[in-house]
Amino acid sequence: MKSLAEALLACEALSLTQRVERVPLSEARGRHLSSALSVAQDAPRWDQSAMDGYAVNWREASKSHVEGADRHYRVGQVIAAGHPPQALQEGEVARIMTGAPLPENADTVVIQENVELIDAERAEPGVWVRFTQRPRHVGEHVRLRGEELNVGMGLLDVGRLLNPAGLALCASQGLTSLEVWARPRVAILSTGDELRAPGTALEVGQIYASNATLLQGMIEEAGGVAVDCGVARDSAEDTREGFLRALAQKPDLILSSGGVSVGDFDPVKGTLADLGARLDFWKVKMKPGKPLAVGELAGVPVLALPGNPVSAAVSFQLFARPLIKRALGSSVEEARLRRARLPLLEPIEKKHARAELIRVARRTSAHHGEGWALAGGQSSAWLSPLERADALLIVPEGEVSWGEGTRAEALVLPWATC
Amino acid sequence: MKSLAEALLACEALSLTQRVERVPLSEARGRHLSSALSVAQDAPRWDQSAMDGYAVNWREASKSHVEGADRHYRVGQVIAAGHPPQALQEGEVARIMTGAPLPENADTVVIQENVELIDAERAEPGVWVRFTQRPRHVGEHVRLRGEELNVGMGLLDVGRLLNPAGLALCASQGLTSLEVWARPRVAILSTGDELRAPGTALEVGQIYASNATLLQGMIEEAGGVAVDCGVARDSAEDTREGFLRALAQKPDLILSSGGVSVGDFDPVKGTLADLGARLDFWKVKMKPGKPLAVGELAGVPVLALPGNPVSAAVSFQLFARPLIKRALGSSVEEARLRRARLPLLEPIEKKHARAELIRVARRTSAHHGEGWALAGGQSSAWLSPLERADALLIVPEGEVSWGEGTRAEALVLPWATC
Repeated sequence: MKSLAEALLACEALSLTQRVERVPLSEARGRHLSSALSVAQDAPRWDQSAMDGYAVNWREASKSHVEGADRHYRVGQVIAAGHPPQALQEGEVARIMTGAPLPENADTVVIQENVELIDAERAEPGVWVRFTQRPRHVGEHVRLRGEELNVGMGLLDVGRLLNPAGLALCASQGLTSLEVWARPRVAILSTGDELRAPGTALEVGQIYASNATLLQGMIEEAGGVAVDCGVARDSAEDTREGFLRALAQKPDLILSSGGVSVGDFDPVKGTLADLGARLDFWKVKMKPGKPLAVGELAGVPVLALPGNPVSAAVSFQLFARPLIKRALGSSVEEARLRRARLPLLEPIEKKHARAELIRVARRTSAHHGEGWALAGGQSSAWLSPLERADALLIVPEGEVSWGEGTRAEALVLPWATC
Repeated sequence: MKSLAEALLACEALSLTQRVERVPLSEARGRHLSSALSVAQDAPRWDQSAMDGYAVNWREASKSHVEGADRHYRVGQVIAAGHPPQALQEGEVARIMTGAPLPENADTVVIQENVELIDAERAEPGVWVRFTQRPRHVGEHVRLRGEELNVGMGLLDVGRLLNPAGLALCASQGLTSLEVWARPRVAILSTGDELRAPGTALEVGQIYASNATLLQGMIEEAGGVAVDCGVARDSAEDTREGFLRALAQKPDLILSSGGVSVGDFDPVKGTLADLGARLDFWKVKMKPGKPLAVGELAGVPVLALPGNPVSAAVSFQLFARPLIKRALGSSVEEARLRRARLPLLEPIEKKHARAELIRVARRTSAHHGEGWALAGGQSSAWLSPLERADALLIVPEGEVSWGEGTRAEALVLPWATC
């Protein structure tokens, strides 16, 4: 038997094959860069106006300061964003819009609020203007070429998670696609004679298959591509066919659910061995989810998860999700579930020896503020408390008696909104 | 001029049309239910074993307790999950697997660890067994029909956000599709003579269009469908054509970027008025992002965002994202950006009158622990500090002088990983 900590460490020693793919910017959100990017062009590309106003030559504008406030300037041109300017002539200013390039000989912008048109409605070429307030310093309201980014400096590091601002930054550098870590393909094989597809009729002893839906949602949440390989009946032959079906999908990881315990009808372990899989059968001192088979079939990592839905979900979150996240470029640290420590809103008593991961919801109490409350019954067959849960409270091995108000750590589920 | 608080309240009075759509379970993750669901079948559907073991009749098993520990029972049948059982006969037990239905006359399960086979290797029909430890109480290791869910009770409330466990819960009830709020279609119109598509060559004064990439990422992150309607040049005619192009996409919301200031080349406001739009021109006492036009064009809400990328992003997060989230079924409260209060890791000095939303990153310092540090320069034209930011620190109107260590509230960006 492995302790929970030992099992987590052992899983962190495993890894999926990482592949690189090039995707358009529009599909790169949430992905990690597989190679670093450098700045390809200065930002801004040229000295430009930071405001709507008038481009001036500081030396001329400050000379006028000495000679008196009433000096008039001729508007030599109107520079809109997107259009190349002419050089500024002596005695002239240029009407300029935010983001437009500064003309040669200009180095400072006077904002339009500080400029008065003389006998004119619009600042057109030929119109005369005067300043009601002169520029305070050279370079005022000017964005200098390269003041944000210079050619050759690092733009985004390898492994960087791409958010909308990062994608826009890449677009502003002229990029249309990026090299990122490919989404791992994760094959799902459900096992069990009792499983029928939702939407069909059930006979006595049959239930609707739900683990494939559960695993698909969790795989996609982690960033993987889920490939449902259907249901294998509890026979060696059908289980064997199921795993071959999964392999044919060229997956990066195979997840099976069910058939991994020591029951007489649990053929997963034997079948995998017959197929030549290298397989460790783990018993983890945890509840839910004691049995877990970990190995490799034809070079593809396999995790055989328990069949009870809560056991499958907890085992996935602890052992499978980090593999997917790391294949996508997360660090070992980032790939783990986030931890949060809050007071218990009700006491926890545990008699059994295994560590327990209790489904808890984040609630507010008058007494303790934000804290952990049971999300419902803790049967590993019950999906509804898992649906309401925000986190998995970590109750360590051995007898535990924690009073209300005890601060306790929980693993926050990836879909928790708190 | 509106204060930031007034502008946020005014935006919460707006709403998009909500539409219902039916989607398969495999596409429903992250969506909100548009109608409540009830339990259609008990869970579990029948009394079943919670363990691999032997189904017994408690009265018989406890009678044997009085008579001595050595009573032998005949294995009458083997009940695997998925197969209907026969009634239990007197003097018999039934080998039973986890999840399999309890046979008639049985009410208790003895786990296999507490049962010894007599002269046999496998628990097959006809084999005799004895208990090494008897059941402790009637119903031990039995999951009773309906102990989790009963027909007719509520399964999931209207508006419920669908996580993987919720989808599996629906599958376990036999559902294959769900009615959810449809993703709003959000048309994006970029305006500006200076904009060119990434991947093309630039002339003096031109830049690569990046706001459509920025808005697409933020729209999709919020759950909307982004429809890029291209770039309109800074003329009334081109802007008019752009808005008509956007309308033709039958959007639920139109977002434009740029051309909304008071510059001579800012045609958005006039064009929208010419098209018959009902339009409020807001000046919000905030930095970045003062100008914002809010209105309705042919029945479709329009938000005309500023052109500087950081201004557009901040305005989107404050004013547009909540509209999308609410159309998808979030409450007003849930649709807002999450707030977090942490100590400042560096002092903040602000002289100008407007409220400021400063791009900050969550960092750890030896002195203050987790806190807010500037994510870089605060120019509204700089994308790289926004890319690094985790949150928007709220600095209120008027002069502000906050020392290092002051606890200050920030709006956490949706893509922040902390």
